[in-house]
Amino acid sequence: MSQGTRDIEALIETMARLPGLGPRSARRAVLHLIKKRTALMAPLATIMAHVAASARECSRCGNIGTEEICAICANPARQTGEICVVEDVADLWAMERGQAFRGRYHVLGGTLSALDAVGPDELHIPRLLDRIAEEGVTEVILALNATVDGQTTAHYIAEALEASGVQVTSLAQGVPIGGELDYLDDGTIQAALRARKRF
Amino acid sequence: MSQGTRDIEALIETMARLPGLGPRSARRAVLHLIKKRTALMAPLATIMAHVAASARECSRCGNIGTEEICAICANPARQTGEICVVEDVADLWAMERGQAFRGRYHVLGGTLSALDAVGPDELHIPRLLDRIAEEGVTEVILALNATVDGQTTAHYIAEALEASGVQVTSLAQGVPIGGELDYLDDGTIQAALRARKRF
Ligand SMILES: [Zn+2]
Ligand SMILES: [Zn+2]
Repeated sequence: MSQGTRDIEALIETMARLPGLGPRSARRAVLHLIKKRTALMAPLATIMAHVAASARECSRCGNIGTEEICAICANPARQTGEICVVEDVADLWAMERGQAFRGRYHVLGGTLSALDAVGPDELHIPRLLDRIAEEGVTEVILALNATVDGQTTAHYIAEALEASGVQVTSLAQGVPIGGELDYLDDGTIQAALRARKRF
Repeated sequence: MSQGTRDIEALIETMARLPGLGPRSARRAVLHLIKKRTALMAPLATIMAHVAASARECSRCGNIGTEEICAICANPARQTGEICVVEDVADLWAMERGQAFRGRYHVLGGTLSALDAVGPDELHIPRLLDRIAEEGVTEVILALNATVDGQTTAHYIAEALEASGVQVTSLAQGVPIGGELDYLDDGTIQAALRARKRF
């Protein structure tokens, strides 16, 4: 096998390690890239090298950026009084796409998990408590996933904040916009029913 | 928006153009890459740049390699008497994984399509006819997809080869190994029934 063939095989194997791609889709993606090697593959390699060299975690909130302090934390227009706690940067991005939240974030980087030995320290919960004191926070919005681990973590944080006097809220649960009841799980329907409002 | 944020957005948009990835899976893939930027993203960028610079189509068969003539065409152990005609390099890879074929390939790069104005010249069919004369080919195996366009192309090639006296065969159709009848389309079941063998 030539070096070139080995490189292509190595590329397929590396691509197959990305979430959402398996061996078959990695092969298809690599073939597509090779066919468009000038217009797509070379620029992708360049920008990937660039991001790999410059990306870093914000030392305050855990968001991804290129500076010590991320663009959101550094933005004076973002309210300092509200912190939205999310599990992952992907959730922060989802909140930002919603364009409804004007405060700042705190990225836990996961959820508490006895099974995986993830404790409060791993999730930057002490740092969250420090920020609440330092930044004059009045409300912490828990935007954690509606999973068992997510809700366990939410309860842990709510208890840890009890002494601080800060208001702790969480995202409303209910039927998503455009959601068809027939496709929703039972828990969502139950939560939506319990939180029902006068029409 | 900072340059770093723009780079990350551009990376997500570029990744989302790969087959099998949409915006959501591209975001997940990029986050994964950023989290593993030293162990995964930087090496991936390097190998991608490498392949983008070195990959090329074999001038004889259309396979992807790094030389004027690909590793399969250049391998003296591969039989020159048999050419397996495939639509795409992905199909060539699939045949090679099967490890059953010891001859050489001819990659069409698509199928005949009146709709997309793809004619015999675009598919390197004249080059296939040249190769049959030059390489002393005795059998052409049509390994085209069992789609309408694939089968139209197979019939076209079979007719084009009629005068050459070369034997033209095609892959058998039938029930895949491990295939459950209940999950097969009707055409496959019909083809398998027509091609039934004494048990
Ligand atoms: Zn930040
Ligand atoms: Zn070749």
